[in-house]
Amino acid sequence: MATNTYAVTGMTCGHCELSVREEVGEITGHEVVEVNAQSGMLVVNAEGPVDDDAVLAAVAEAGYSAVRA
Amino acid sequence: MATNTYAVTGMTCGHCELSVREEVGEITGHEVVEVNAQSGMLVVNAEGPVDDDAVLAAVAEAGYSAVRA
Repeated sequence: MATNTYAVTGMTCGHCELSVREEVGEITGHEVVEVNAQSGMLVVNAEGPVDDDAVLAAVAEAGYSAVRA
Repeated sequence: MATNTYAVTGMTCGHCELSVREEVGEITGHEVVEVNAQSGMLVVNAEGPVDDDAVLAAVAEAGYSAVRA
């Protein structure tokens, strides 16, 4: 079990949050704990270790960019 | 055939534009010519007269507010 936090840039509204939540939520064994457009914060929990590469790729797939915080 | 323009407040991104486009596009005989989050401009074309009340209600349904411009 692990929890990683990321700083996402480019989200402006609830639709953006939903896009990120959906893409990251598709990663097996990973769950979005929090995503906030205003702060840019994304918190991801995983059963095992959080797969940073998969999270960053999912955020990119949603149309935004992120770095591990 | 008529074309009306509206000023929409609250749209921040392409997802917002899509929400407005979808709701207004559901009005029978009406077509969204343009919707722009940055300018807030919404342009609606209709086969007959544009139904202002229906357009404003559709924008509200999408989660935003508008006035006839």
